[in-house]
Amino acid sequence: MVDIYAMGLIVQKYGGSSVADAEGLKRVANRIVATKRAGHQVVVVVSAMGDTTDELIDLANQVSPLPNGRELDMLLTAGERISMALLAMAIGNLGNEARSFTGSQAGVITTSAHGRARIIDVTPSRITEALNEGAIAIVAGFQGISQDTKDVTTLGRGGSDTTAVALAAALDADVCEIYTDVDGIFSADPRVVPAAKKLKTVTYDEMLELAASGAKVLHLRCVEYARRYDMPIHVRSSFSNNEGTWVVKDHPEGGTYMEQAIIAGIAHDKSEAKITVVGVPDRTGTAARIFQAIADADINIDMIVQNVSAAATGLTDISFTMPKTEGAATTAILQRIQGEIGFQSIQYDDQIGKLSLIGAGMRSHPGVTATFFACLADAGVNIEMISTSEIRISIICRASDLENGVRAAHTAFELDAAQIEAVVYGGTGR
Amino acid sequence: MVDIYAMGLIVQKYGGSSVADAEGLKRVANRIVATKRAGHQVVVVVSAMGDTTDELIDLANQVSPLPNGRELDMLLTAGERISMALLAMAIGNLGNEARSFTGSQAGVITTSAHGRARIIDVTPSRITEALNEGAIAIVAGFQGISQDTKDVTTLGRGGSDTTAVALAAALDADVCEIYTDVDGIFSADPRVVPAAKKLKTVTYDEMLELAASGAKVLHLRCVEYARRYDMPIHVRSSFSNNEGTWVVKDHPEGGTYMEQAIIAGIAHDKSEAKITVVGVPDRTGTAARIFQAIADADINIDMIVQNVSAAATGLTDISFTMPKTEGAATTAILQRIQGEIGFQSIQYDDQIGKLSLIGAGMRSHPGVTATFFACLADAGVNIEMISTSEIRISIICRASDLENGVRAAHTAFELDAAQIEAVVYGGTGR
Repeated sequence: MVDIYAMGLIVQKYGGSSVADAEGLKRVANRIVATKRAGHQVVVVVSAMGDTTDELIDLANQVSPLPNGRELDMLLTAGERISMALLAMAIGNLGNEARSFTGSQAGVITTSAHGRARIIDVTPSRITEALNEGAIAIVAGFQGISQDTKDVTTLGRGGSDTTAVALAAALDADVCEIYTDVDGIFSADPRVVPAAKKLKTVTYDEMLELAASGAKVLHLRCVEYARRYDMPIHVRSSFSNNEGTWVVKDHPEGGTYMEQAIIAGIAHDKSEAKITVVGVPDRTGTAARIFQAIADADINIDMIVQNVSAAATGLTDISFTMPKTEGAATTAILQRIQGEIGFQSIQYDDQIGKLSLIGAGMRSHPGVTATFFACLADAGVNIEMISTSEIRISIICRASDLENGVRAAHTAFELDAAQIEAVVYGGTGR
Repeated sequence: MVDIYAMGLIVQKYGGSSVADAEGLKRVANRIVATKRAGHQVVVVVSAMGDTTDELIDLANQVSPLPNGRELDMLLTAGERISMALLAMAIGNLGNEARSFTGSQAGVITTSAHGRARIIDVTPSRITEALNEGAIAIVAGFQGISQDTKDVTTLGRGGSDTTAVALAAALDADVCEIYTDVDGIFSADPRVVPAAKKLKTVTYDEMLELAASGAKVLHLRCVEYARRYDMPIHVRSSFSNNEGTWVVKDHPEGGTYMEQAIIAGIAHDKSEAKITVVGVPDRTGTAARIFQAIADADINIDMIVQNVSAAATGLTDISFTMPKTEGAATTAILQRIQGEIGFQSIQYDDQIGKLSLIGAGMRSHPGVTATFFACLADAGVNIEMISTSEIRISIICRASDLENGVRAAHTAFELDAAQIEAVVYGGTGR
């Protein structure tokens, strides 16, 4: 393996598909040992093997339709316990010492919200001890111990990535490597845009917007954590030695990136649906009442549009988007409050797509919106809703138009060519 | 379920075959809830589901031919973590609160000898807390945490039974119930002696001798622990509500047992082999040298016979028995020291059987040995080796004669009839 880092402390995270069987475990063990032998201190965060978590959930459902949260966490954490012990053995078999640690042993202190605990603190004294004694530390991802009750907790979605970044921050690591089955972060989904390019760098802010807009590679929580502690993430493939994508605070100075690439990437998302509440009386507090009822059910609304009220009727329409999985629950809530609010009807539309343009360069380039909308018009994509942030523009269109829109925007912002050539961040001695 | 106990604290232990699948877990959950609803406080010790442990060992062997002991313990303890969490969920589904605890959480403090740790102390404050709050406590069997290194350990063979008895002692429980797939302890193996009777009571001493002589129901360690803390064990079937066998300090007074039954039970064992070292020079220290070499390899010798030395040659023969599984290793050790000791040859014989008569009544009945040997002679069973303790007589015979010998002794000591009628121990308000 070509060593691209200066000597230091590296945290590596491997997902369940990388350690799905004995062969995978051995392959990952080889990679870890190579990193160690290159002179680094290595901490590894590992997920449960392959489908283990799903199989355990299936068993839980066989004994109880609504498994207790504390016990479900106790059950699911067995998954990482198995993968981490096996990985430590596989490394031992290559002649290096590895010690595995549960979330509790690694000092991952969390809230007591079972199934979706938040990390409060990380006190990795046992990890530091293992590293100082020359061992490789293997840590169970996704799990911790609650501060109040000393019970085993799980972090929920994106938990293992978050564990890795949190540990890296607590250990003051030089880099947190997240291994996946793709080569890094791309300017768009390569399955939709064959000309999509692997990005050299993405800023935390861009990555947050990408993750929130449908990019699947990194989870929002993990990126938020990295941004808070300014921990560089290196997203790369566990199947090659290629450098992947660096997620960092700023694009490196002196690169060509800042001059040329206004847009870092284009994300798309077909997982949302749109609800339109038709004929809402235009009174103060009505919209608030609707969205409060939805928020009370823990349903996350994404985009909202309120039409200008028709003066003749005093009625308006309110449209919003949310995950399709919450569609039925949201509709039920609205039907319950229909009498109280006095709106006319509900329209549910799950044939929508969301297209998002993300780039820190947008801040200093006011023409982005115009270029974006023009290219969509040329491609025959009708815009139904719009939402923007400082470094993102998202639109809702027909689901059937979505991929055309992605390709049109990718070309319009000159992402197809090879111009995304920031300096090799890792080569500068990071 | 008929409640045979006065109100109190009951520790129940269920083995892997009782919780092999969702159906088994639900059946056990029902039994636990019934005990709780009868007014008892209930602590449950559970093993890993069915073949889980073997499957995990198989995975370990796939990644490493000699898995690290610490990591193997980390791996195997995932098995009980799964079964205990599922059992707690199944109980929750019946409307009772159950909380599961790892060995570490339950305060099972051990030595750091991975794979064969010994319990040093039990500090079950979390269990007590759960019980005081009205919950059922589920504890992972077979595991603990090492006092020195704070690492996860396993107790080795018989570990879950030992966990149950140790917890029962630490909690000052009224009884430790060990659930198995048989109805209790029998006067002989019912597969060999169809007239064998279930025993009402067995003393700790008798049970220790039975376990050491080949009876499989309870492990030696667990009985030793129970004897040390005088913790009554109730061995019973998880498939019925029948009272099983009580393992206690003394047979209850006032029962008919002490008058009639000299022998509590007959054990047999075909798992041993005999090695004869032929032509050993009859010098001081020679036997010691042989057995020291074998002990250094951690091989347990059972019975030993040294023939009277032949005056003409100054040579003697030494025979001993040990587990067949250690036969090859033992032979190799003897071959290595043959030159040094100067004996003539080694004979290996794995066609032997051991027949043991066990009973506390033996102490006051000197005629037992004569009756035993006479009945074996009548049955045509030739005695090859003899060993005795205060409450046990064991003989080695041909393996092919063993079962005949068991039946002959069972009849000779009048165990076939219904005379083993001690008072119902549990009915006295224990």
